[in-house]
Formats: sequence, structure tokens, C-alpha cells
Amino acid sequence: MNKSELNSILNKVAAGDMTVEEATLAIKTQPYEDLGFAKIDHHRGIRQGASEVIYGAGKTKKQILKIIESMLNHGEKSVLITKLSNESAEYLSQSVPLFYDELSKIAVAGERAVAVNAGGKIVVAAAGTSDLPVAEEAALTAEFYGNMVVRLYDVGVAGVHRLLDHLSELTEAKVIIAVAGMEGALPSVIGGLVDCPVLAVPTSVGYGANFGGISALLSMLNSCASGVSVVNIDNGFGAGYLADMINKI
Amino acid sequence: MNKSELNSILNKVAAGDMTVEEATLAIKTQPYEDLGFAKIDHHRGIRQGASEVIYGAGKTKKQILKIIESMLNHGEKSVLITKLSNESAEYLSQSVPLFYDELSKIAVAGERAVAVNAGGKIVVAAAGTSDLPVAEEAALTAEFYGNMVVRLYDVGVAGVHRLLDHLSELTEAKVIIAVAGMEGALPSVIGGLVDCPVLAVPTSVGYGANFGGISALLSMLNSCASGVSVVNIDNGFGAGYLADMINKI
Amino acid sequence: MNKSELNSILNKVAAGDMTVEEATLAIKTQPYEDLGFAKIDHHRGIRQGASEVIYGAGKTKKQILKIIESMLNHGEKSVLITKLSNESAEYLSQSVPLFYDELSKIAVAGERAVAVNAGGKIVVAAAGTSDLPVAEEAALTAEFYGNMVVRLYDVGVAGVHRLLDHLSELTEAKVIIAVAGMEGALPSVIGGLVDCPVLAVPTSVGYGANFGGISALLSMLNSCASGVSVVNIDNGFGAGYLADMINKI
Amino acid sequence: MNKSELNSILNKVAAGDMTVEEATLAIKTQPYEDLGFAKIDHHRGIRQGASEVIYGAGKTKKQILKIIESMLNHGEKSVLITKLSNESAEYLSQSVPLFYDELSKIAVAGERAVAVNAGGKIVVAAAGTSDLPVAEEAALTAEFYGNMVVRLYDVGVAGVHRLLDHLSELTEAKVIIAVAGMEGALPSVIGGLVDCPVLAVPTSVGYGANFGGISALLSMLNSCASGVSVVNIDNGFGAGYLADMINKI
Amino acid sequence: MNKSELNSILNKVAAGDMTVEEATLAIKTQPYEDLGFAKIDHHRGIRQGASEVIYGAGKTKKQILKIIESMLNHGEKSVLITKLSNESAEYLSQSVPLFYDELSKIAVAGERAVAVNAGGKIVVAAAGTSDLPVAEEAALTAEFYGNMVVRLYDVGVAGVHRLLDHLSELTEAKVIIAVAGMEGALPSVIGGLVDCPVLAVPTSVGYGANFGGISALLSMLNSCASGVSVVNIDNGFGAGYLADMINKI
Amino acid sequence: MNKSELNSILNKVAAGDMTVEEATLAIKTQPYEDLGFAKIDHHRGIRQGASEVIYGAGKTKKQILKIIESMLNHGEKSVLITKLSNESAEYLSQSVPLFYDELSKIAVAGERAVAVNAGGKIVVAAAGTSDLPVAEEAALTAEFYGNMVVRLYDVGVAGVHRLLDHLSELTEAKVIIAVAGMEGALPSVIGGLVDCPVLAVPTSVGYGANFGGISALLSMLNSCASGVSVVNIDNGFGAGYLADMINKI
Amino acid sequence: MNKSELNSILNKVAAGDMTVEEATLAIKTQPYEDLGFAKIDHHRGIRQGASEVIYGAGKTKKQILKIIESMLNHGEKSVLITKLSNESAEYLSQSVPLFYDELSKIAVAGERAVAVNAGGKIVVAAAGTSDLPVAEEAALTAEFYGNMVVRLYDVGVAGVHRLLDHLSELTEAKVIIAVAGMEGALPSVIGGLVDCPVLAVPTSVGYGANFGGISALLSMLNSCASGVSVVNIDNGFGAGYLADMINKI
Amino acid sequence: MNKSELNSILNKVAAGDMTVEEATLAIKTQPYEDLGFAKIDHHRGIRQGASEVIYGAGKTKKQILKIIESMLNHGEKSVLITKLSNESAEYLSQSVPLFYDELSKIAVAGERAVAVNAGGKIVVAAAGTSDLPVAEEAALTAEFYGNMVVRLYDVGVAGVHRLLDHLSELTEAKVIIAVAGMEGALPSVIGGLVDCPVLAVPTSVGYGANFGGISALLSMLNSCASGVSVVNIDNGFGAGYLADMINKI
Repeated sequence: MNKSELNSILNKVAAGDMTVEEATLAIKTQPYEDLGFAKIDHHRGIRQGASEVIYGAGKTKKQILKIIESMLNHGEKSVLITKLSNESAEYLSQSVPLFYDELSKIAVAGERAVAVNAGGKIVVAAAGTSDLPVAEEAALTAEFYGNMVVRLYDVGVAGVHRLLDHLSELTEAKVIIAVAGMEGALPSVIGGLVDCPVLAVPTSVGYGANFGGISALLSMLNSCASGVSVVNIDNGFGAGYLADMINKI
Repeated sequence: MNKSELNSILNKVAAGDMTVEEATLAIKTQPYEDLGFAKIDHHRGIRQGASEVIYGAGKTKKQILKIIESMLNHGEKSVLITKLSNESAEYLSQSVPLFYDELSKIAVAGERAVAVNAGGKIVVAAAGTSDLPVAEEAALTAEFYGNMVVRLYDVGVAGVHRLLDHLSELTEAKVIIAVAGMEGALPSVIGGLVDCPVLAVPTSVGYGANFGGISALLSMLNSCASGVSVVNIDNGFGAGYLADMINKI
Repeated sequence: MNKSELNSILNKVAAGDMTVEEATLAIKTQPYEDLGFAKIDHHRGIRQGASEVIYGAGKTKKQILKIIESMLNHGEKSVLITKLSNESAEYLSQSVPLFYDELSKIAVAGERAVAVNAGGKIVVAAAGTSDLPVAEEAALTAEFYGNMVVRLYDVGVAGVHRLLDHLSELTEAKVIIAVAGMEGALPSVIGGLVDCPVLAVPTSVGYGANFGGISALLSMLNSCASGVSVVNIDNGFGAGYLADMINKI
Repeated sequence: MNKSELNSILNKVAAGDMTVEEATLAIKTQPYEDLGFAKIDHHRGIRQGASEVIYGAGKTKKQILKIIESMLNHGEKSVLITKLSNESAEYLSQSVPLFYDELSKIAVAGERAVAVNAGGKIVVAAAGTSDLPVAEEAALTAEFYGNMVVRLYDVGVAGVHRLLDHLSELTEAKVIIAVAGMEGALPSVIGGLVDCPVLAVPTSVGYGANFGGISALLSMLNSCASGVSVVNIDNGFGAGYLADMINKI
Repeated sequence: MNKSELNSILNKVAAGDMTVEEATLAIKTQPYEDLGFAKIDHHRGIRQGASEVIYGAGKTKKQILKIIESMLNHGEKSVLITKLSNESAEYLSQSVPLFYDELSKIAVAGERAVAVNAGGKIVVAAAGTSDLPVAEEAALTAEFYGNMVVRLYDVGVAGVHRLLDHLSELTEAKVIIAVAGMEGALPSVIGGLVDCPVLAVPTSVGYGANFGGISALLSMLNSCASGVSVVNIDNGFGAGYLADMINKI
Repeated sequence: MNKSELNSILNKVAAGDMTVEEATLAIKTQPYEDLGFAKIDHHRGIRQGASEVIYGAGKTKKQILKIIESMLNHGEKSVLITKLSNESAEYLSQSVPLFYDELSKIAVAGERAVAVNAGGKIVVAAAGTSDLPVAEEAALTAEFYGNMVVRLYDVGVAGVHRLLDHLSELTEAKVIIAVAGMEGALPSVIGGLVDCPVLAVPTSVGYGANFGGISALLSMLNSCASGVSVVNIDNGFGAGYLADMINKI
Repeated sequence: MNKSELNSILNKVAAGDMTVEEATLAIKTQPYEDLGFAKIDHHRGIRQGASEVIYGAGKTKKQILKIIESMLNHGEKSVLITKLSNESAEYLSQSVPLFYDELSKIAVAGERAVAVNAGGKIVVAAAGTSDLPVAEEAALTAEFYGNMVVRLYDVGVAGVHRLLDHLSELTEAKVIIAVAGMEGALPSVIGGLVDCPVLAVPTSVGYGANFGGISALLSMLNSCASGVSVVNIDNGFGAGYLADMINKI
Repeated sequence: MNKSELNSILNKVAAGDMTVEEATLAIKTQPYEDLGFAKIDHHRGIRQGASEVIYGAGKTKKQILKIIESMLNHGEKSVLITKLSNESAEYLSQSVPLFYDELSKIAVAGERAVAVNAGGKIVVAAAGTSDLPVAEEAALTAEFYGNMVVRLYDVGVAGVHRLLDHLSELTEAKVIIAVAGMEGALPSVIGGLVDCPVLAVPTSVGYGANFGGISALLSMLNSCASGVSVVNIDNGFGAGYLADMINKI
């Protein structure tokens, strides 16, 4: 609540157009529902331009169902759930309409958005076959928010000609998500070819000195290409969400 | 070079409008000047929308001067140099017009841009006084590329009311750069308040278990707020450059 | 044993009021029972103000039962067990009265304390739903020792207004336990709002660059708020125990 | 600002006892002075029970002087500065009355507090001679806030009888600060002897696999004694500040 | 083979007392049997004073059996196997006489030594109940080589009086093995009380910032007590073996 | 495509010997087949001298089968698959001729190469029995490409005479692969004995402070012997492939 | 000494052609000179094909001079010294003929080799200007041993077209040294373009999450390109030495 | 103080042979002098068989002098000081007789011991010239306590024949100290050759992935040779002290 909004409320109180109780409520009202184990923020769609998303990994299937129902009951048309186990997906699908992608463990409860909003194309590039679960998490997230997504898979830097053959798709993108494990060099190479933001997503793909994604993460943070920023290891959702944000500016 | 451009050149060759030599040159021409120790990319401004920038830390003052002169001689009006030592700055200023900010170690050789391009405001928020060198590196970079920058300094999360008092500036921003050392929580708090991209810059400010910025870096990568991405520790330039890119979409 | 106690014993010996054997015993008596695999300290309740607690994780269910029985036989009314597996809990409940909380893996054998001792309120604040097991371990520990506990759950910093709505509960607390995984920023924000001790508990909640709780741990150690101290990752018990200690000062 | 305070202000506005402008000011007034590079919080003494402290390490001597003058001009009688270099101390002492302890790099500008407030004794125990700078930072901080401090130095665990000879001082303490580098075992041993809170401060003293204090830090976090919590490496101030908080409960 | 042995062989060749073939064999003879996957050193008992030991963790039960049989067939009376799984133990016991200790996963195939050799007592001290598997690995190894072992268990530093009650056993030891997880402070405290070598064994017992034993390992390496050296995490065998070596000097 | 090849194509176009379409195709033709989840490079055998290899770990058995079939259909006689699970091997063997080595998890689909190409011998030396899976991955890879391989197993540095007995095999090698876990010293000792390249392969064999192979990896990187280079932990394939490359120079 | 050499010596002894003393000498003779602080290996040139090299960093200038003189006195024509400080170079040049390259800190005492031996070209590719010291260490080492070296500098992956323009040099190389700091992706991209061994040299160039070269090191170890192996951070010498070895196979 | 000593004192009190005050003194007497910043333990020579040693690194030259004087005044004939700076050594030598070794930074104040006690030889083996400072710290410490020391320097594993030439010295040792940086393999190779305890001392010698000695430390902890234990990085004193202890058993 900024100063002018506060001024406006206080003016109404001073003018008698609003009671003290109403003003207290307006200032302090809790724009979320308290389920005990979670506080559901029903105004977030308005405040932040995107509804709250459920991170499925740390929650029981019953907790997830309760949150979904609370959200659908408060007017949300659809709810995005990430890192959802197969078992929980099966459980949820008995109570609510559910789209579920087993590869990326992402789900949409309620209506699945189809309309593509205005904005440019988002390219999701992935270095190897093993990076696809994270890449799809990013791609499906971006599509959930109504973006047009172009997928470029298996374009890792050890076969740089595969990537260069897609130069036109890359240069036409408004924002690019680059997903890679192992040495994590894809965002640097892409960053040097284009003039749009590149969101780098390290994955935990690899073995040995890969250390669960640290290798790729450090590579991306140290990228010598400008215009590259990084999200957490395996955080396809984060990249998809941010790409949507940038695409709609 | 994408397919249609290649097609076009080949068609000219087939039509006799272009010699084989000319075509070879067009396809293979090196859009950079080779100084031996560096290859200056003079077409980067066209290809990527922003001229090449000189990272001053790993270069001698003589190398830096040569690169600047090469760039100014090829039509650049101004050149940005980051992490420039006081000593090198003094040396350069004897040969080229130089703006130098001692706090952030950033310099502009040639004309300093004054005109503010179209686009929204970029907010640069910094947690503490000690984070200012990095914050200023980001702010001056964004200004170099013609953006309007709003500075919010000393708004760390341990005094969250200082930040909330600037809610209006935050919500009016098109992109926010959040700079913090120590626990690095500023981007998470800001990310929860706004609906624009937040670029998080960890700094090496702190001591003990701070480990030269790792603490802040990990905090930012693990941010529970959506819409946050991260650049390297102390990489104010990277954030300023990317903010410019996003602001101009 | 301090100097005056020693003096007193020696004086009795010198006066013939105590035999050498009795003195030896008094000075050297072992205030614990030796079960072979463990030495149970039956005077700890007197010496440290709180009975010994059983850390369930590294022990077999039979070992745990033996320790409980030894303690109940020596006059303890109830025994706290932490990190107790479901299977061990089931086994124990066949032999002793047992309260068991499956979420936090905490149990109380014997009578469960009900009376609330004097002292102020202890607030247990948790950032996200996934932090609840650790938060409940802290809360139930504090309640075991007779403290009044106020729970504030799902008040993470990415939705700082949820936390600010509970400012009155926070400012009325005598000591606050702040539990958070991921970026672990909750203790810093709370520490800046109140003037009582804040005990920070990092949790292993998260993924990727979270590194099993290191991210949250480092954030809390580097907190820019004063009055914050930290216990081990996932150590809800430690925070609950220390909060009780402080509350009873 | 909690609900009742807000209610009170709004009631005054409704009753006409307060103008809209006055109410806005009361709700939104900035309880700090903006020096550009820093925002000085002049109400913190009231809100948090202790005035703001200046962390000297990341600031220029001129910045520090400006902050001190701003605070003294707003009614503070004395200001605590930590990690202050000899050079800055000399500079400051030309403009303001300054107590400076070269060992711990701590300073007090203005009047140095002498009166000892109510409350129990705070024991500061240090393992070795090399830990004294950090121990003194803790002790002087606690004394600055009016506490009675007992120093037990060179009582490391490799000579456990030195520590046991001071059992009476330890058991009489209301809160103990245990400072140690190297293996950092002091807090565990003390924690097992007493029933008051033990604040553990790892120091960066040592070499080799000490890794700048990590060894001691991890030891303290993993303490098998209950009632121990930890602050950052070398953070004597933080421990002294928190000890004062606990002592005054 | 040292110079005098070589001289002796060469002299025999020069004198015609030894053929070239015999000399070659004597110099080059392979004092081990090659099983393909392993080379069994049958002279090690002579050369190093102790027979080869089988590290069970990285081998199949069939490989282990073959090695045991090869050793028993070459005159060994008994063979020590460490880190042996329950399943492999059951398999082996069908073919060879086997003593197996489930707690420490240590086994003896063939005759189990009973006679106690000359030498002083070896004390094995363990901090907590959870450290017993490693402590028993050390104790049983030392006993396998004919040493008298005194066990002091559950004597962690958080109850330092439990340890001090055994001061006489400690001071009578010729070498002490100190086993501890968590903060790993036991060797430091013991090292300060005695004047014999202390072999420190960190264990992976603990959780959170324990990091699989790193915390205890670093503590022990940084011990401020003299006369302490360290073996690998959980390496009870290594400590038992070295203690035997020292005890027999 | 280098300059002369490009010149040649362009000359043909200029001479009318090649249409624009043909030239475009020649320059841009995609030398791989796109299976959606993977792009199979069918020209790699020509371009790099060795066919593409399938890294089995991150792929489903169905994906692997599709890639094998695509490669065999394009003229490959045999395909190498690494890190293949038993289950996938069983599945594949129902559809294609398959050699599978359970120890090293390496497989060859199609014809298994038998002919030994020209070139010297490759020695694969392994420190311990537990390193054999990685050593065999290296050896079988080198044999797959037609090299003669000499295996020296169980020649770890703690029994340096076992290694020295094989000095002649070592000095006759053209390239040596040295595989070791734990302290990883084998490559250093070998590197000091020979004058051919030594490829060091750290394995994750060991426990405690081994940290999944980091100990051996660091040892090998810090080798004081010249002529040693290192591949990733457990990367037997990488060493075998590179040894083949060097052997055929 | 292998079996046949030993046989030969023993046969001579048996035949009376060699005395026992001579044989002892031949077998045991120390092929190095003992300077007390160092043992100079004068036969290494014969045994390993390359003379010993002096690692200058950990030695005093006087120690270095003594070693050089010992080597030159034993018939070496030239001696390579790495990581030599300016000051030591100046000192040495007063006593022996010295070539010194200040950038790479590499020196040659005695005659500097000029003749180029047979063998293919070695390409040294460096990502950025700041990597030149390490790249030159590699290049000058390879030249010292008589190889023809092609330098490709400033060809980092963020400007991949700069690298591709040198495809012909790359494909004509017999072995390639790829030097890079920051994200260290250069070896992966090169490895995918060529079919010769690629020796990757990580440099400590960069800042922040670069961690003194760890980022580049991990990238290179995790390279998805085959045929890549890695040497220690900043170890240009090691790569140059190994490249020479491979080139001469 | 063990039970029998306590009994004895108490019996004297009961018999009237000792006053209460005398007994108190005997039990509680502080066997150290308190200098404020340090507590000097004057009975340690009796209790632990070796006088206290001064760790010079963390103390001022004045503190060191005071401790030395206190010790010499209480009957010590000589005092060992480690890690003593040149400057402090010069200062001390003006007040007390001082032997100072600049290489190892070790000093002896007072009389320097010359008599060699009974016991076997201690071998100090060092891998490279750069390891000599640490090796000499170990050797001089052992000599200070009256041991006979044999030095074997520059016997690193990359030239294993240099080490094998000293097999007789190694096999005749009663305890061996093996000092090495870089890959730290020396203790493993030595451990496999001898049947006496090997004390491994990692040094911080090296660069790049050496990480200040971590590489050597991990190698030594993971040694596959039995009978090896490890002290802290660069802790030559610790190894020398422990070797003395073992040698005198």
C-alpha cells in the first residue's frame, strides 16, 4: 500500500465516508486464506500478475489438494503445480481436472490455458537429452502463462553446428531459456550470438565432478557473455516464470 | 548468418552479381580487428545492440588504451571500462577523454552519453553502505546505455520499513536490480512485492561465514520469490547490462 | 563441584563427621547409570534444570526403550525423544505410555506435561509449509518444558505482508524461534522488527544450490540483524530447548 | 505499528483530533535520516532497546564520522563502532571524544557508559591467547550496554583443569559467551557444565585445515551440548549484543 | 631389498653358487598370488609384521571368499575382514569358520586369536552411543592383533565429568583411540590429560552441518592438544591397526 | 567447413556446375537425424574418426533402442553404449545383437570389433580390486576402437613392488591409463617411471574423506609427475577414447 | 630397470665380465646429484626423453641457480624454469645466459632451442586476453622442446564466430591446448570440432564465483566432448609438456 | 588427579596429617601462572612429559617474551617456539639466548638440548624442496626433545627410485614422518614399504587445485596403506612432537 492509497483511505475516514472499522479492515485485511499449514494468497494474481503456484515436492498429496480446492473456489481458473510425484498426480486427478506431464513432473489443475497472449517467442534450448525434464518444466510453465514457445533440444556445445543451424530461431526470440548440465556452456555460446536476455538453467545431469549441478551452475555464473543471468539448479519453473515476465514487458 | 542471407549471397554469385572472392569475403569476413592480444569486435554494436565493453581487471593499462583507441577509431563514440584501477584511469586520462568513478571503478572513454532513451525506470536497490561500489557499477552501466535509474540505498531487510517506504518506486520500476552482501535476502523480499523482473547481485561484503559472497549468492539462487535471477558475485556491470536489455524490449 | 562445596566436605572429614569412604563417594560418585552402550545421567535434571533427552536417530528401538525405562525408574515423570522413527514409536508404545507426533518425529514417554510454567510467550515462526516438521520439533520441545508457544506458519519473506500482519504477536514474544529453508532470510527480517532474542533454525528444505540446508545456514550466520544466533540445520529441538532456557531466566 | 496503534490514530482522525496530514505523517514518518550513502535510524533506541551500531569495516572514515555526528546530534549520548581501523580511529578522535581498544578494534564515540545496569553476570570465556581480540569485542560490547562482565581467558579444552577451576564463575553466570578457534570445542564442554544459555563464537584463529574459522564454526553448530547457539565467525559484537538482550530479560 | 641383500645375491652368482636364473628369481620373485582381480601378498606378514586385511566394502562375496581361501591355503591362521555386509558374512560362514560382529561389520575367518601379546593397554574411548560401530571396529582390530583393550564408551565432552571419572584408565594407557562424531572434541580433551599418543577417529555420526563427518574431522585436525593424529572418517580399523603398531614398539 | 571447401563450392556455383539449391544444401545440410529428444550425428564417424557413443545413464531404454536403430540403419556396424543398466541391457538384447559387460556396464550393439588396428599397446593399470569397473570401461572402450590393451590390476602404490614388477609392460606402452580411487597416487608414480602420456582416471572408490572421488581427483590434478592429464571421476570411457586417439596419431 | 637389463648385468657377472662391485653400482647407482635441498636427476633426459624442469615458485633464487649450474655442468644444454619471479630472473641473468618471458614467468637458461623437430603442429588456443600468461607458458614450453606452435588467442565461446574462422588451423593440428578461465567452455567447443586430443588448461582468471579457477576446472572435467583431458589450474607447463609427448608419438 | 591420589590426600586429612587448607590447596592448586592474556602451565613437563610450547603465530613479540621469561623463571631450561616471525626472533634475541631457524621459523630459547635420549631413529622424509620448511619444523622439534633424526629430502613419488635407494634407512626407523604437498602420495608409498608408524604431514605447497594443502590432506587421509595417520596441514611441530612420544614408548 503506497502513500496515495493510504491518503485516500484516510481522507474517506476524515470525511466520514468510511468508518474506522472499515478503514482498519481495508488497511489490514488479510488477502489470503489460512489453511493452518499454509496461507493461500488470493490477491496475488492481481498484485503480481500471476497466480500463486504450488511447489509440490515438500507437501503431502492431501495438503496439495486442499490448496488447489481453496484456489479454484476463490476464482482461479487453473493452478500450476511443479515437482509433483506420479502418485500425487494420480490422487489429485480423482478430485480435480488435471493435466500432468510425467517427464517434467509439472501439472495444471482446472482448465489448461490455450490462448496465446501477445508477446514474442520464447526459445527453450537444451544441451542434451537428459536435460529434457528441466527444459520441459520451463517450456510448460511459459505456455501455462500464455506464451508461444519454440523448443531446440540436443544442441549442446560439443556439436556447435547443431546449434548454429538454428541461428534464425535464436535471433528471432524475445527471450531465451538455455538449459544445460555437465559443463553448462550453452548459455555462454548462445549469449554471444543474440541480443536478447538469456536465462540460464543449470541441471544436475552428469556424474563425478559434476557435483549435482555445481559445475554447470558455476559455469553459467561465470559466463563471459553479457546478458546472461542464472536461476537455481533444476529450476525450470523459475526460468519459465521469469521469461513470461520479460516477454510481457 | 542465417539461411536466407546465405541464399541471397549465393544467388548473387549465380547471377554473376558477386564474384567468388567477394562472396568468400562476405561469408568469412572477420568483423573484428586483431591486436594480437585481443580481437576487437567492431560489428558487435550492430549485431548485439551494444558495443563491446572492456573488462579492465586482467589487462595492462597499455592494452586497455590500445583497445579503446581501436574502438574510437572505428566509429564508437564512447567505450565502457569496468573494474579499472585508479592508476590505469590516471594513465588513460592523459590520452583520451575519460569519466571515472572511483567508488565503482567504472569509466567511460570518449563522450559520456547524456540522452535518456525511451523505456521505463530501472531501480537499483542496495542493502548496505558497503554494497555501494557494486550498486554504482550497475547504475552507471545502465545509465551509460541511456536508461533512467532510481537509486534506493541502505534498504536492507533488517530494517524492512525503510524498504517498504519506497514501495511506490519499486512498483513503478520496469526492472529492479537488487544488490546485497551478507545474508543476501533483499531480492527475495523485493521479489515478493513487485511483478517485474528482479536481477539479484550478490556482493562479497561481509566476513566470516560470508566466504567472499557465497552466502549471498546461495541465498539469491534459493530465493523463494518468483521472477528473480542471479548474476555473478560483485558483477554490477552484468546486472546493469541485462537490465538495459530488458528495459528496451 | 566448586571450592566451597569441597571445603565443606573436607571440613566434615577433618571433624570426623564423614568417613574417608563417604567423602570419596561424595566427590567421585557417578551421577549416572551405566547401561554399557550408554551412561544415563540421573542428576542432570538437578544440575542443568532439564532432564536428559534421547536423540532417537542413531539408536535401536531396544536401546531407546532401555534408556526410557532406566529414566522412568529413577523418578523422571516424562522423557523427550527426538528424531524417532514411526517404527520405533510403534514399538515403544507397546511398553510405555507414549505421545508421538508423526510430522516432527518427536515423542514424549510417560506423562505429557500440561501445566504452563511462568515466563513469556515463545513464538515459533516458519517460512514455508515444508519447514513445519522442524518448526513443530521446536514448538513441541518448548511445550514439553512448560512454555506457552505461539505458532506463525507460512510467513516467508517473499510475502512480507503476511509476516507484518503478525507484528503484534512478534513484539509481544519473549524469545522467537525463526525456522526457514531455501534462502533462510526470515530471522533477519524478524530480527529487525523486534528487540528480543531470535533463534534461527536453518532447514534442509529446498533443492539444487540449497545443498541440504547450507544456503539457509550461511544466510542466518551472516544476518545483518543484531540479536540473532543460529543452531544446526534441522535442529528444532536445540532451538526449543534454548528458548525454554532463555524464557525462564 | 500494530493494530491497536493504528486504530488509535484512525480514531483520532475520525474524531477530528488529528488531521489527515498529521496521521499520514504519524504512520509514514521516516524514523531515520538519509545521508545518501546511509539511512540513520534515530528511533531504533526506542524501538529495539539499543541504539544503532556502526560496522566500521566497509566504510570510509569520513562516512563513519558523518554517521556519528548525525547520531550525536539526534540525542544519542554514545555510539558503538566495531572493526574500526587504527587509522580511522585516529581520524575520528580529532573530531569527537573517542574510546578506542586497539586489540579488538572497537570504539565508543561520545560518553562511555559507566553505570552497570541490573541483571546477572555475563561470562566471556576464551580458549587461547589468539582469541582475545574477538573475546574483547564481545566483552566491551556487553559492557557498553551496561552489563557486568567476567573474563575467563586461556581456558581451552586441551587443559580442561584450567576451565574446571573456574566452575563457580561459570555456574553463577546468567549467560556465557564462549570464544574459540581451532577445534572450537569450548562451548560444548561449557554447555555440559552449566544450565544457562551459551553463545558460541568461532574465531578464524588457526591455520591449515582450520579454513578461516570453518572448523570451529562446524564444531559449534554440531555441539552435543544443549543450550548452545552460534554466531558468525569472529562476530564478538553479535554475541555481546545478544548476551545483553538475554541478560535483561 | 637393500644393498647388502643384493650384494649377497650377486656374490653368490659371481662365486657360481647361484645361477643367473635363480638370482633373477630371487630378485624379482613375486611374493603374491595373482587371482586376476587381486594380487594376494603372502609375504606381507613377514615384511610388515601383520597379514593382509580384506576391505570388504568394494568386493563381491565370491571375491572375498577366494581371497580368504588363498590366504588360509598359504599358511595364514586367520584373516581379518572389515566393512563386511550381513549377507556376505552369512555366505562366507557356509565355507569357512567365521566370527562376525554385526555392529561393527568386522569379521575374522579361521581361528580367532585369543592370546594377548605383551605390550600395554589400548584404551578405546567413544563419545556417544552412535559412535559404537566405529569404536568396536577399532577395538576388535586391536584385539585381533593380540592387544589388551579397555573400552570407555559414552564419555563425550558435553558431560566431561563422565570422562574425568576414568582418568586412571586414561593415564595408564599406552595408546588411546578416541572416537567421536558431531563436534569431535573428545581427542582434544583426552590429549590434554595424558602423555601418550592419541589416535583420533572422526565418525559420520550427526546431521545437518555435520556433513558426513567433516565437522569432526576438521576439529580433530585442528586439535590444540599435542600428540594427536587423525585417520579417515569411520576408519576404526586404521586406528586399531596403528595402535597395535605403536603398542608393540 | 574450412575456407578451401567453401571456395570450391562457390566456384562450382559460379561455373554453373552446381545450383544455388544444391550449394545451400551442401553448406547447410544437417548431418544428423532428429528423433525429437535427440539429434543423431551420422557424419561424426567421418568428421571425428569415431562414431557417436550413447551415454546410457540419463536415457530410458526405449530412447536408447531408438538411437541404436537409427545408427545401425545409417550404416554403423556397431554402437558403443556406456553406463547401461542391467535392465536396459536385457531389454535391448531382445531387439539387437548385444555384447554386455555387467561389471563395467558397457555394451556393444551390432558387430563387436575384433580386428586390432595398427598402433602400440595401451596399458590400463588399476590400483585396487574396487577400481575394476572403471578400468574395464576404459579397457573395453579402447578395444572397441581396435586397440591392443594390456591390463595391470591391483598395483596400488601401497605395494609399490607389485607395480615395479611390471616395469617392462609400462615402458613398452604407447599410452597408459591409470585408474585409482582413495589417495589416487598411481598416476604420479607411473608418470615418474615412463615417458609416454599417462591418462589419470579418479574413481569414487573409498569412503569418509574420499568425498565421492574428490580426493583422488585432486591428487591427480596436483601430480608432481609431468605428462599426466586427468578425466572426470569414474570416466573410464573418456580415458579409453582419448587413449585410442593418441595411439593412432 | 627391466628384466632383460637385469639379466644382462647378471650374465656379465656370471661370465666374470663384470665385478660384483661394478654390478652393484650399475644396479644401484644414483642417477642424480644430491644438493642437500634437492636431488638433481641427470639421467632423466635419457630415461624420460626430456630433461628435468625447475619449478621456480617454491625455491629461493640461490637454490635455483645451484640447480641450473649442476645441470649445465652435467651436460644439459638448456634448462627450463617455470613460475620464475622477475627478481629471481634478474639475479640468474647475472650468472647464466637467460631468456625470460615476463608475461608467462617462464625462462630458459643456457642455449635456447631453435630447431623445430619433426611432428605436427600444436595449436594453443586461449579464450581471453587475461588467459595469455598461462597460454604462453604452454606455448613456450612446447617450443622449448622443439615443436611448431600456432597461437589462436581471444577466441572465447561468447564470440564463437571468431573461433570458427580458425577451423582450418584447428583441424590441421596434431594436438590442441585449450586455455580458458571463467566458464571454461572453450575445450568443449573445440573438442566437438576436431578429432585430435584436446588438453584443457583451466586458469584462475575471473572473479566472484570463479573461486580461483574451480569453475573452469569443473567445466573442463565435465566436458561433454570426447577426447578432452585436463591439467591443473594455471598449469600451462604441464599441457605444453604433454602436448610435446603426444606430438612425438 | 585419580582416585588413589584423592584417597591418599583424604586419608592424611582424616589422620590429621594435613590441614583442610593444605588439602584444598593440594586438590585445587593451580599448576599454572596467570599472565592475564595466558595461563602458563608449569607442571606440564611433569604431567605430560614435555614442557609447554609457544605457538608464535597469534601472539605479539612482547607476549611471547613474557611467556618465555615466566617459563625460564620457573625452572624450564629451554622453551620451544614455533611459527616465529623473523622480526619477533630478532626482538627476543636481545633479551634471551635464542636459536632461530629462519627456514622453518622455529626457535629455542634458553639452552638448546644436545644430548640424544635413548630410542630409535626418527626418519623425516620430504617429497620436494618446497616442503623443507615444514619438514625442518618436524625434524628440529624431534631433535629438541632429544631424538636422533635422519633426513631424507626430495624423495617424492614421481621419482620413486630416489626413495627406494633409501629403503634401508626407512626400514631401520622406529617412526617415520612423511611430509608432502601437491598430491601427497609419499606416506602411502612409504607406508607400504615399512612396518612402523608413519605420521603424514600435508603441506600447503602447490598451486591451483591444491587449495592450500587440501589435496595432500585428503590423499593422506585416504591412504590405502595401513599404519598411516595424519596431522594438520603444515603442522611439522605436531608430527615431531608425536614422533617423540612414540619413539619413547
